[in-house]
Amino acid sequence: MAGSTLGTIWKVTTWGESHGKGVGVVVDGCPAGLPLSESDIQAYLNRRKPGQSKFTTKRQESDEAEILSGVFEGKTTGAPISMVVWNTDQQSKDYGNIEDVYRPGHADFTFDSKYGFRDYRGGGRSSGRETTARVAAGAIAAVFLKKLGITVTAYAKSVGPYTVDPERFNIEERDNNRLYMPDQETALKAEAYLEEMMAKTDSVGGVVECIIDGVPAGIGDPVFEKYDAALAKAIMSMGAVKGFEIGDGFAASRSTGSENNDRFLPGKDGKVEKATNHAGGILGGISDGSQVVFRAAFKPTPSIALPQKTVTRQGEETEIEIKGRHDPIIVPRAVVVVEAMAALTTADLLLINMSSKMDRIVSFYEKEK
Amino acid sequence: MAGSTLGTIWKVTTWGESHGKGVGVVVDGCPAGLPLSESDIQAYLNRRKPGQSKFTTKRQESDEAEILSGVFEGKTTGAPISMVVWNTDQQSKDYGNIEDVYRPGHADFTFDSKYGFRDYRGGGRSSGRETTARVAAGAIAAVFLKKLGITVTAYAKSVGPYTVDPERFNIEERDNNRLYMPDQETALKAEAYLEEMMAKTDSVGGVVECIIDGVPAGIGDPVFEKYDAALAKAIMSMGAVKGFEIGDGFAASRSTGSENNDRFLPGKDGKVEKATNHAGGILGGISDGSQVVFRAAFKPTPSIALPQKTVTRQGEETEIEIKGRHDPIIVPRAVVVVEAMAALTTADLLLINMSSKMDRIVSFYEKEK
Amino acid sequence: MAGSTLGTIWKVTTWGESHGKGVGVVVDGCPAGLPLSESDIQAYLNRRKPGQSKFTTKRQESDEAEILSGVFEGKTTGAPISMVVWNTDQQSKDYGNIEDVYRPGHADFTFDSKYGFRDYRGGGRSSGRETTARVAAGAIAAVFLKKLGITVTAYAKSVGPYTVDPERFNIEERDNNRLYMPDQETALKAEAYLEEMMAKTDSVGGVVECIIDGVPAGIGDPVFEKYDAALAKAIMSMGAVKGFEIGDGFAASRSTGSENNDRFLPGKDGKVEKATNHAGGILGGISDGSQVVFRAAFKPTPSIALPQKTVTRQGEETEIEIKGRHDPIIVPRAVVVVEAMAALTTADLLLINMSSKMDRIVSFYEKEK
Amino acid sequence: MAGSTLGTIWKVTTWGESHGKGVGVVVDGCPAGLPLSESDIQAYLNRRKPGQSKFTTKRQESDEAEILSGVFEGKTTGAPISMVVWNTDQQSKDYGNIEDVYRPGHADFTFDSKYGFRDYRGGGRSSGRETTARVAAGAIAAVFLKKLGITVTAYAKSVGPYTVDPERFNIEERDNNRLYMPDQETALKAEAYLEEMMAKTDSVGGVVECIIDGVPAGIGDPVFEKYDAALAKAIMSMGAVKGFEIGDGFAASRSTGSENNDRFLPGKDGKVEKATNHAGGILGGISDGSQVVFRAAFKPTPSIALPQKTVTRQGEETEIEIKGRHDPIIVPRAVVVVEAMAALTTADLLLINMSSKMDRIVSFYEKEK
Repeated sequence: MAGSTLGTIWKVTTWGESHGKGVGVVVDGCPAGLPLSESDIQAYLNRRKPGQSKFTTKRQESDEAEILSGVFEGKTTGAPISMVVWNTDQQSKDYGNIEDVYRPGHADFTFDSKYGFRDYRGGGRSSGRETTARVAAGAIAAVFLKKLGITVTAYAKSVGPYTVDPERFNIEERDNNRLYMPDQETALKAEAYLEEMMAKTDSVGGVVECIIDGVPAGIGDPVFEKYDAALAKAIMSMGAVKGFEIGDGFAASRSTGSENNDRFLPGKDGKVEKATNHAGGILGGISDGSQVVFRAAFKPTPSIALPQKTVTRQGEETEIEIKGRHDPIIVPRAVVVVEAMAALTTADLLLINMSSKMDRIVSFYEKEK
Repeated sequence: MAGSTLGTIWKVTTWGESHGKGVGVVVDGCPAGLPLSESDIQAYLNRRKPGQSKFTTKRQESDEAEILSGVFEGKTTGAPISMVVWNTDQQSKDYGNIEDVYRPGHADFTFDSKYGFRDYRGGGRSSGRETTARVAAGAIAAVFLKKLGITVTAYAKSVGPYTVDPERFNIEERDNNRLYMPDQETALKAEAYLEEMMAKTDSVGGVVECIIDGVPAGIGDPVFEKYDAALAKAIMSMGAVKGFEIGDGFAASRSTGSENNDRFLPGKDGKVEKATNHAGGILGGISDGSQVVFRAAFKPTPSIALPQKTVTRQGEETEIEIKGRHDPIIVPRAVVVVEAMAALTTADLLLINMSSKMDRIVSFYEKEK
Repeated sequence: MAGSTLGTIWKVTTWGESHGKGVGVVVDGCPAGLPLSESDIQAYLNRRKPGQSKFTTKRQESDEAEILSGVFEGKTTGAPISMVVWNTDQQSKDYGNIEDVYRPGHADFTFDSKYGFRDYRGGGRSSGRETTARVAAGAIAAVFLKKLGITVTAYAKSVGPYTVDPERFNIEERDNNRLYMPDQETALKAEAYLEEMMAKTDSVGGVVECIIDGVPAGIGDPVFEKYDAALAKAIMSMGAVKGFEIGDGFAASRSTGSENNDRFLPGKDGKVEKATNHAGGILGGISDGSQVVFRAAFKPTPSIALPQKTVTRQGEETEIEIKGRHDPIIVPRAVVVVEAMAALTTADLLLINMSSKMDRIVSFYEKEK
Repeated sequence: MAGSTLGTIWKVTTWGESHGKGVGVVVDGCPAGLPLSESDIQAYLNRRKPGQSKFTTKRQESDEAEILSGVFEGKTTGAPISMVVWNTDQQSKDYGNIEDVYRPGHADFTFDSKYGFRDYRGGGRSSGRETTARVAAGAIAAVFLKKLGITVTAYAKSVGPYTVDPERFNIEERDNNRLYMPDQETALKAEAYLEEMMAKTDSVGGVVECIIDGVPAGIGDPVFEKYDAALAKAIMSMGAVKGFEIGDGFAASRSTGSENNDRFLPGKDGKVEKATNHAGGILGGISDGSQVVFRAAFKPTPSIALPQKTVTRQGEETEIEIKGRHDPIIVPRAVVVVEAMAALTTADLLLINMSSKMDRIVSFYEKEK
């Protein structure tokens, strides 16, 4: 199992290497009748696209998605939607020197351990380029969720030591800076810090936060298929993610029950609301109708130009300077990937959840008749 | 889908409610020929067992596992291993008052949202009692891993604000205190803090850390089935877990590439080693042969005797005091559950990994002939 | 993987050996709110129960199902429903002599090949007794289907060379003879034939036919998850089944397009009907709203008292006479197992199908609000 | 779920419509290090290719597979292998008239029922063209199996009423006639019959038989994941297949135990052999080391030029003459598809089976160190 498929009803299968012919994805299980066009996909891909600022690699990747199947006369047909993004700017030679050397922080050594050899061009399958396919699939999930009144919004919460000030939080600011931070003041400080690190040919980590609005109560299953467990898997499956937390996360471990419990309140129309949201919108693995809020910790880009000691495939000591064109920080381009993974997970669980109540199933099939 | 099954080759299915006849688990896919007895299981269950100290509930649960199938003449047969732990001390009446009231921090409201009604006795399916089944299954996985030279060891890393001092870390101390902390001095402080909170009828959270030793390089798959993603899902599927991190985790997000990258070193017998282990033993989702290290953040026990405002099923405001017998902290009894989930995940990925290399498959089947 | 779990949303996991403590099943994914009692299960188990006529084994199996979880106040809760049928009449000694001998037509040799050794008592996991668990699970699926107006009815279509005469077909007659044949005249002939074979200590095969009424059009998925493909897998997973066919089946291979195509007709209320049903109710893997009709071919019981030549575990020639208490024909007791497998498959696909159309999903979630 | 993914470890996902941009497949889980080239794929696709004789459609489909990922320097890398066959000769206009009319024997009506509308061009997703993707994937599985000494060979067993004479069976003859029949004399008669039916603008059905040689004993799992159950699902998932049988199949239902049981014999090197093979190489769902033999029944091509009565989408009566270019019989081109499905199923189960025995797992990982 190469592990390239995710999901139970809404299934996503990605393929492709950074320096092969292209990367692609098959989305199987998207319901029929969803209006969809290539421009819906492109809007998401453009946010992941490199070469847009000094904080992202200067590689000119095309990143144009072509829909190969599953859409007819502007609507999904229920058949698998196959999409491809062709690789155009490969420059394989840049990477030739890593064939026999294990880059620190990369998967070169572990791929060799697992498979006996590897496609050494640009990280092959473990390249960040694989996330292009995830974003294309996630774009479809986002279009689907929108029809149900659900939106997914991620942003950079912190860059190195600089964290968004909750008081200054303004989501409108997110797209006004190159770090996708919803706080202009912190963004400026973080940018300065990043430039300083770039001057040292070093790299920086950060945290992405994601908010899912409009999820109805009841999504996710108890026990192993909890909504937050599914989100954790989807998010931790992104290359550089080292941590995941929902709601108050690790801070909750330092809290007390009386502080951390969210009090229930009578809401409008007999609904139930919560006075606070320490839980992050999920109780017992099931959505409670409030905002779902989670965070992902990204390690610093492992590709740095600083000379690093390492070993060769043959186990001999050597030194490496990674010259290629690399982002000094993963976070800004990862923001939309986080949204994509959250959207895919939520879409799948929404479909699964339709079968939870007997009376709703009976009424569904009575209507079908 | 009630989501009660986990795993691809090594599959685990749990069942049972806190106040039903019992809880149980079916372990399907455990290889044939593994020596196994009920005492192997019991050793793990005893560590989860309540009523052992003032920090755990006084309920006298039997917690004795009975093996119903899959073991013959002291060895697993390859058939599903069914185990049950009968409920003996149920005292349903203690819980009668929560039929119509939503306990803050619990899944009462979300279960009602999802299923239309719920088994309100003691949390039903979302009760911590379900983890008994996980521990029974995890015990088998631990026996399996031991045959491959792999051990899984968890402990309380922090309780409320008190964290194990790395300088004093001593795993031998873990079982000498009621909090399972590998640092006697911190344990004493944490115990005092806990008693103080108990006096206030409040509860406390904490962090469990887990180390997996002896995992060969190559376990886990790229893309969606990364080893750390699978661990994250398994751990986040535990009821009160709000965060997961591998290696340096969230701290890595504040680090730089030059600090965070683990330098490779020539090891013994042509092997590759690492000078540090910021990665936590996993690179690109695949084990690198060093220790796997991860942490889980637990929220404070939501069941507290302090009066809390909340709403009824009918949406009317009310107040609740949760009287039952509840642990003031989840962490100590969760330590063995974390081990169980880590063992189950690792066992499954080890079996999956056997099919990664063509030459090894050919030699496997040649030997079979 | 021991392969003991079936289904995507409605998941069934069986466990247990013929001569262990019992056999059981966990049904996960049954919707909440379905009225269910042990007597619903028992009605199905009684039809599979042995010891009822001279054509079935004289073993006195209890075959009483106990529900251990997932049902509260007479309704399913959405949690896994665990059921067990305890073994009471084991008589292990009867089977002791087969520890080292491979019974022809049985799985003794293949289990040894796969697992290195086996639980030799009464066939262990490959015993027909495992189907008790399937029937218990299928009974729940049948109760579920009934709520949607769907019924599943199987019967013996042929016994050895004797086949039901379509002109005399009368489903009311099915339960009036010991072979479950819906044609009294053929049943009498078949019974005489069977007694003749029993006198020779030989055994007989037969065909079970199954009709599913009331399935709405649209169930099943194109490509790999066709409704008929799912039925085929479920039915072929029964121990002695050697063939499966839908609609005209193998006869269709000798037909022509003009004969075999079912003409569409205008039906009531703008519905579409078919003039004939050569297809067996499924077109392109998806139900067409007419009766689903399929057949399963059962081999003769392999356990016969006639002396048979075979080999020992050590590969030496020997002779075996299988003395135990065995059915001379599998078909009568398999009828309800076929119904169970068909019901389980149909229930799962009905739940999956709810996510096929965008407009229905939108209206489902609007209603939820 | 559109049901386009098959397999547990060796996973295959197909996509594409007959009149879209192309059809493709992603093969995930093929082990690393398997030598593979596009010509390996092409050899299989050529056998499915239309336009080769008067018995196959005159459409000139390109049917050239392009490998887009997963192969590096002539070997599989362990990453997903994505392949595409571009559509070149689409002639959409031929099919325009079926937008509003339900073709008898086709999935037009059921697709509309399931999805609300359909891609009406050439059958869309339910077109036989989808099998191109299966053959491309199956070709890789066949290359894999060959390395383990396993071969898969299918042929036309019968065409309409004409069946291969076992006495004249000669596999060398298979590729010498346009029907892929391993019996020249029967092939001639069948061809004459077929021409007669073509003259009447009618179509014909038939049976494909498949032999898998060299499968080691032990493949397949008891209970639901039996080898024959998995084959049945894979084969029944082909569009026009109406029946599946293993070994003696339906004939076994008319046999007796003494006739049908295969006697075990001492073989070479302490191995166990069978005197006969009524079982078709599988006992209790697990391979027994002898030839695996199964058959699939194909209905006659539903597309016939004869005028047929049917209804429109609006439920009104109409008449249709299907003009396009259609095979008068599906069997010859399906032969290689049957091989492909059998190869894929066998490959997946071989990989799964590696985890069945504890001692083999221990020795596998000891060797890895």
